[in-house]
Amino acid sequence: MTDYRRLRVALLGAGSVGSQVAALLLQHGPELADRAGAHLDLVGVAVRDLDAKRDTDIPRELLTTDAERLLVGSDIVIELMGGIEPARSYLLQALNAGADVVTGNKALLATHGPELFEAADQVGASVHYEAAAAGAIPIIRPLRDSLAGDRVQRIMAIVNGTTNYILDRMDQEGADYADVLADAQRLGYAEADPTADVEGYDAAQKAAILASLAFHTTVPLDAVHREGITGVDAAMIEAARKVGYVVKLLAVCERRDDAGVESISVRVHPALVRREHPLASVHGANNAVFVQAEAAGNLMFYGAGAGGVQTASAVLGDLVSVARRRIAGGVGVGESTRANLPILPIGRARTRYQITLEVDDRSGVLATVAGTLADGHVSIATVEQTIIPNGEQARARLVIGTHIALEQDLEDTVDALAASGVVERVVSVLRMEGD
Amino acid sequence: MTDYRRLRVALLGAGSVGSQVAALLLQHGPELADRAGAHLDLVGVAVRDLDAKRDTDIPRELLTTDAERLLVGSDIVIELMGGIEPARSYLLQALNAGADVVTGNKALLATHGPELFEAADQVGASVHYEAAAAGAIPIIRPLRDSLAGDRVQRIMAIVNGTTNYILDRMDQEGADYADVLADAQRLGYAEADPTADVEGYDAAQKAAILASLAFHTTVPLDAVHREGITGVDAAMIEAARKVGYVVKLLAVCERRDDAGVESISVRVHPALVRREHPLASVHGANNAVFVQAEAAGNLMFYGAGAGGVQTASAVLGDLVSVARRRIAGGVGVGESTRANLPILPIGRARTRYQITLEVDDRSGVLATVAGTLADGHVSIATVEQTIIPNGEQARARLVIGTHIALEQDLEDTVDALAASGVVERVVSVLRMEGD
Repeated sequence: MTDYRRLRVALLGAGSVGSQVAALLLQHGPELADRAGAHLDLVGVAVRDLDAKRDTDIPRELLTTDAERLLVGSDIVIELMGGIEPARSYLLQALNAGADVVTGNKALLATHGPELFEAADQVGASVHYEAAAAGAIPIIRPLRDSLAGDRVQRIMAIVNGTTNYILDRMDQEGADYADVLADAQRLGYAEADPTADVEGYDAAQKAAILASLAFHTTVPLDAVHREGITGVDAAMIEAARKVGYVVKLLAVCERRDDAGVESISVRVHPALVRREHPLASVHGANNAVFVQAEAAGNLMFYGAGAGGVQTASAVLGDLVSVARRRIAGGVGVGESTRANLPILPIGRARTRYQITLEVDDRSGVLATVAGTLADGHVSIATVEQTIIPNGEQARARLVIGTHIALEQDLEDTVDALAASGVVERVVSVLRMEGD
Repeated sequence: MTDYRRLRVALLGAGSVGSQVAALLLQHGPELADRAGAHLDLVGVAVRDLDAKRDTDIPRELLTTDAERLLVGSDIVIELMGGIEPARSYLLQALNAGADVVTGNKALLATHGPELFEAADQVGASVHYEAAAAGAIPIIRPLRDSLAGDRVQRIMAIVNGTTNYILDRMDQEGADYADVLADAQRLGYAEADPTADVEGYDAAQKAAILASLAFHTTVPLDAVHREGITGVDAAMIEAARKVGYVVKLLAVCERRDDAGVESISVRVHPALVRREHPLASVHGANNAVFVQAEAAGNLMFYGAGAGGVQTASAVLGDLVSVARRRIAGGVGVGESTRANLPILPIGRARTRYQITLEVDDRSGVLATVAGTLADGHVSIATVEQTIIPNGEQARARLVIGTHIALEQDLEDTVDALAASGVVERVVSVLRMEGD
C-alpha cells in the first residue's frame, strides 16, 4: 500500500452530491486506493460559505472559499457546483494545467461540452461525467465503450426523477397535476421552483449529452426540442390508461436514414408508452435508459436518477477510472464527434400520434375528419368514438391513433382539423413512442 | 483516415457469434476505424472445417485451419471457439506475445481466468470479456469502472436465456417443464442436449465471472453452488403465482458481513421472486442483472443474453476499446482481486425460504411443525393451510414462508420435519430472493 503514488484531488462544491463524495472518499480511502492503484488525497473542498450546513461532516481544515488556489497542483478536479460560471472557468483552468476532470454538471456539458473536450484534448487530459447523464445509472461507459462497435438506432429515456414521480402518482392515483406537484414539493421530490424539471429543461440537457455520445455528434442544447409535463392532466392519463398506455416524459434520441441520408432527431416531451414496454414499469423517481442498437437489440439501464449518495457513486467511479489512467499512462478518452450527423428540426421528426377531438355528433363528421387526415398525409391506425351527453346537441369524443407520420404534417393536419368546422375542440395531441 | 495505424486482428472461431463478428467487422470497417482511431484489419479466421456452413459469408481467403500461425504477429486476438482447450493454449500464446485478447468464453474464464489475467499482466496486455457475462448486456464496464468507487452488496441475475424462456412460458401458460423444454428445443431456444442450461452450469460460470468482478475476489467455479430447473414443475409455479411470486433461475452473488468479518456467497438456483420486483418482468429469453450497491442503490441492466449478432455487439465493443488503448498507450486494466474475500459454502448462505408440506389433517400437527421449525432456529413469517380431500384420511397442504434463516439450519429442519411423523411429504423447498 505504501508504494502507491499519491494523487491530489480537489473538490469544487459541497452540496447534496459533493458532500457525499467527500464523505465516501474520506471513509473508503484505503479501499479506493487499492482499486485505483493510487492514494486519492482530498486536498480541499471549495465552497461559497464555510459555515453552511451540509449533509455530511467535512473536516473544517479541508474547506476553502478560494477555488482557484485549490486547483493549483491538483491532479484530478471534481466539479459539483452546478451552473455555468464560475464552473466553466475553473474547469478550463484545471484542464489547461493538465488535470483530469470529473463533473456532474449537465447544464455546463450541454452548453459548453465541446469547449471542455477540446481543452482536454490539447493536453491529453480527460473529462468524465457519468453523474451528468442519468444520476447513478451507469450509461456513459456502456454507450461510449460497450456499444463502440455497434450502431445505436434509438434511445428512449426517463431521465428526470421529479417528473416521473409526478406522472407515476397521477397514473396510480388518478390525481391531478397541481395536487401531486404540491405534494412532491412537500416531500422533497420537487423544488420550490420546479421549472427546470417540469418544463423539461433538465431532461433536455441530459438528452443532449446522451445523443452526443450515442451518435458521435455534437448536439447543442438548442437543437433539442423540449416540452414539459405542465399540460398533462388527469383526463389525459385516464384516457391513456383505457387504451393500455401510460404517459411518461421521454427523452428520445433517434437515428434517421432517409434514402441513405443519415440524420438524428433529439426531443423531450410527454409520450404515450404501451404498458408492456419495459419503460412503463419505471416507477417513482427512478430513471431508465432504453437503448435500441443495430446488433445488440434492446437494452435497458435502470436505477436512481438523482439523490446525493446515489449520484456520488457515479462520481467516485469516474474518479477511480481517472486515477487508474493517470497511473497506467496513456492519453485520455477523447470525445468522438466524427460522425457529426445533421440534427433535424422537430417538424421533421416522425412518430405515431394520438389525437383526441371533441366533435359534433352528427352524420358526416367522421368522414370529414378522416378526409382531413388523409389530405394531410396522416394515416389512421385506430379510431374510437364515445358519445358525450350534452343536452340537445350531443357531442362525441374521437380518439385517433395514427400510423407513423411526419411531425410537420401532423401539426398542419391538426390545424386543419381545428378549422374544419366539425371539430369543437382539440383535446390533446400526444406522441406515441416505442410501439 | 489514411494516417490511422493498422492493427492486425485475428479471429478464432466462426460459429454463431464469430461469424457475425467477422461480418460486422468487414461491413462497418471505416466507421469502426473512426471510433477506434485505428484500422482494424481482420487478418484471418481460424476454423476447424473450411467448408462448414456459416451464418454469414466470410471471404474464403480469410479462413484458415492453422490457428497457431494466425496468432503470430497479431495485435488483437478474438476468441469465440468456446471450450477449454485449445482455446486456453492459443490465448496464452497470444498474450505471451503481447497481443490483447477479447473472449466470450465463459467456461474458460470461470476455470482459468486467473491464469489468463496473470499472463496479460506480465506483458501489460489485457483480457476483455464483455460477451462472456451476460451476452449483449453491458455489465463488465459498469461493474469494473462505473461502480469502482462504490461497494456492491448483492447481484441477482437472470443470466441464462434458455431457462428464463422455459420458466416464463411455464408461468404464462401453466404448462409443464417437459412440454415447454421440448417446444423450446424445437424452436431453437434450447439445445438438443440442454444440460448446460437447465442444470445451471452456464449460469454458474457467469455467476463466477460476475462475483469475481463485483467483489474483487477470485471466485473459482467449484465455489459456486449450483441447482438447475429440472425439479421445477407446474404445481410449484402455480403455488408461487397464488402468493404473488414468480419462479426464476437466479445467480445470486452477495457480500456478507458477520460482525465485521466479510465474506461472499455465490449460488445459482431457482428462486421465488415477488412479481413487483424488476426481475419478475424479464420475459422470454431475455437476461437482466440486478445490482444493489451501497451508494448507488438498486440498478438493473437488461437485454438479450444470447444470440449471435447480439453477442457480437459486445465483442466489437471490446475490440474498439482495446484498439483505442493500444493507440493511446498505457497498460491495460488488470483484474482486481485485492479483496479476495472468503467464499462461504452453501450451508452458510442466509435467505428466506418457502417450504411446502403435505401433512395429516389432524389436531396437533401444526403445533408439531411449528415446534420443529422453532427448534431448528427457523422462524415462520407466513403460513397458509389448505385441505386436500383424500378419502377418509384428509390431508392438508402447508405453505410456510420463513424469515431469513441459515441454509444449514433450514436443511436440518427440513430433515427433522420429514422424520417428524406428521409430515407425509416435503413437496418443495424454494429460496425467496429480493424481498
